[in-house]
Amino acid sequence: MSTAGPAALPQPVLVRGTGLLGTSIGLALRGSGVEVLLHDPSPSALAVARDIGAGRAVELEGDVAGAGAGEGTDVTTPGTVVVAAPPDVAGRVAVDSLLRWPEAVVMDIASVKASVQTDVRAAVEKGLLSAESASRYVGTHPMAGRERSGPVAARGTLFTAAPWVVCAEPDTAAEAVAAAEALAALTGATVHTMDAGEHDASVALISHLPQVAASLVASRLQQTPAASLALAGNGLRDTTRIAASDPQLWVQILAGNATRLVEILHGVRADLDRLIGTLEAPDAPGARLDIAQLIAEGNAGQARIPGKHGAPPQAFAVVTVVVDDTPGQIAAVLQATGDAGVNVEDLRMDHASGHEVGMLEISVLPGRREELTAALTERGWKVV
Amino acid sequence: MSTAGPAALPQPVLVRGTGLLGTSIGLALRGSGVEVLLHDPSPSALAVARDIGAGRAVELEGDVAGAGAGEGTDVTTPGTVVVAAPPDVAGRVAVDSLLRWPEAVVMDIASVKASVQTDVRAAVEKGLLSAESASRYVGTHPMAGRERSGPVAARGTLFTAAPWVVCAEPDTAAEAVAAAEALAALTGATVHTMDAGEHDASVALISHLPQVAASLVASRLQQTPAASLALAGNGLRDTTRIAASDPQLWVQILAGNATRLVEILHGVRADLDRLIGTLEAPDAPGARLDIAQLIAEGNAGQARIPGKHGAPPQAFAVVTVVVDDTPGQIAAVLQATGDAGVNVEDLRMDHASGHEVGMLEISVLPGRREELTAALTERGWKVV
Repeated sequence: MSTAGPAALPQPVLVRGTGLLGTSIGLALRGSGVEVLLHDPSPSALAVARDIGAGRAVELEGDVAGAGAGEGTDVTTPGTVVVAAPPDVAGRVAVDSLLRWPEAVVMDIASVKASVQTDVRAAVEKGLLSAESASRYVGTHPMAGRERSGPVAARGTLFTAAPWVVCAEPDTAAEAVAAAEALAALTGATVHTMDAGEHDASVALISHLPQVAASLVASRLQQTPAASLALAGNGLRDTTRIAASDPQLWVQILAGNATRLVEILHGVRADLDRLIGTLEAPDAPGARLDIAQLIAEGNAGQARIPGKHGAPPQAFAVVTVVVDDTPGQIAAVLQATGDAGVNVEDLRMDHASGHEVGMLEISVLPGRREELTAALTERGWKVV
Repeated sequence: MSTAGPAALPQPVLVRGTGLLGTSIGLALRGSGVEVLLHDPSPSALAVARDIGAGRAVELEGDVAGAGAGEGTDVTTPGTVVVAAPPDVAGRVAVDSLLRWPEAVVMDIASVKASVQTDVRAAVEKGLLSAESASRYVGTHPMAGRERSGPVAARGTLFTAAPWVVCAEPDTAAEAVAAAEALAALTGATVHTMDAGEHDASVALISHLPQVAASLVASRLQQTPAASLALAGNGLRDTTRIAASDPQLWVQILAGNATRLVEILHGVRADLDRLIGTLEAPDAPGARLDIAQLIAEGNAGQARIPGKHGAPPQAFAVVTVVVDDTPGQIAAVLQATGDAGVNVEDLRMDHASGHEVGMLEISVLPGRREELTAALTERGWKVV
């Protein structure tokens, strides 16, 4: 968790790259009264970000897009630069920023950290940058996103309650770490501090592996008859939801973390090979035990995923209520839940295709389950 | 969809196996006024099912558990037998039922259909059963379950809106199909008719493959440091949720559908091998295109999964509202939604660990999104 107050953030903040994330950072910082400058090689993306209030658009001298514009080049010197460029150019833009503004803290927000850090260190080795200059760079990763992209989809609340990793390396200046933590905290995010290697190993497991698995499963559905897909339940929907992700972005992420991801995928392939071997002779001695072992290992891993607010996994009891498809039904159930003084810890709808009713699953503290069931039943709700 | 009315169900209905599903079927049928008899080799499971009102407990002459009980053997002849035994004994119990009651329709509810059907056909080939007798057997699969098992977890509403597959084969008697359809409809399920091969191929893709993928991903988390898992978002949670499933049950399901599942897993392994090869040389010519291709294929497959009520996938717009963790907050948002006359099509909470606020994601018809956003914003809610 961050201990740096807002004063630790040198202003103004220049956001380089006004896509979804950069623009959302601008909006969040403006909401906290921070002075924000914006730049993007795309004049239209920049104009949209400015028009929705994410900050003041500036041109950069010598920038490819800005070259020849002449007038309008901004002379304001940023205190902090947020590199929000696509992952595969983040390193180059970070080095460029360290060179342009010799006093500024430079942070990037790419999803993979080692490759950006490598670009900065390479600039030192080539003599482009002093080691002291490079210490003003700090890698970060806000773990938030939306299903849509671009500045139009930006929201100042995008980072509310989201984890934002700040990578403090031995060669990172303390002021740079403090600035990054202060910025993340101002957006409403929860700061997690770890080094770049730990970050990249973490996201390989908790983000990149699930993406690959979802894509592999969903890929199998390309030729599936509609009658088969009509049987799909939440198991399939949940497992494949993130398979809808943007290929262009994920190419950069997966390629950028290739080494760590490949190591994990080798482990997955070994397990998959073992399962295929077992299923090819399901009646051989030990086969059943082998399959049970795979499922049990999955149980063990799944049980380690923390729940809401970092609570122990599976800490909640679920009360399931039948609701039909008219406005106000779900509200009425939750109103009754609130009236009973029971807090909703989590919530989801469970429904199957072809039917006009659904199941509302309300997660509550285990000690409140019986009470809520009784309260809802008394009011005429069908608790199942 | 079923066209058979309740009259097509010969009564009384004997449920053999009073676990979660058998007991839930009993409860659902009793709720519709159907006469239900129950049997289970476990006297305590049977007593629980009876005590919660799922039907009348009977003993069966010559049954392993019933042998020697002498008195109490029931002489009521069932019109329909529902075999709700564990998958790997379902075939044996189905054949036993066809032999015991020469006039009854016999249906089973195991998750894999070809193996049960094979057991019935084998009994005909061995001369144990006439082809005419075997035609009274019909395989079915109610696609419902809970995270808990046993008769105590049973609910009469378990099948509400769930798909229930009825396998009509060329050698299945029309009355048997009609009885199964009538029974499924009485429980509130939606009847889908297909043959056993089509069913098993369907569930291999939409149920067994997701289970394997979830277990493979979750298995990798067994040694993951807690600091890494603290970064987990809904992507990981959704992808691994079903990894919490019961190993003993899934051994039987996966082994029972091994041939069809292996074929699919070979396809997954080929894609995985291709990805591993690409990630081992991510800068080789064509590598990026290869990765993008995998993600794009996942996009294409995911887009084919039908949405709620069989609606086209991704037909809904999402309005995201910030809520804090006090009773009544979610209810108030949904009350405001109902007041605005906007129907909630789907609902979920999105939250990160370590923070006391969450995002309520309300899915609505796309044409209502702006309207709902305006209505909620006007009432002081933070729509993001």
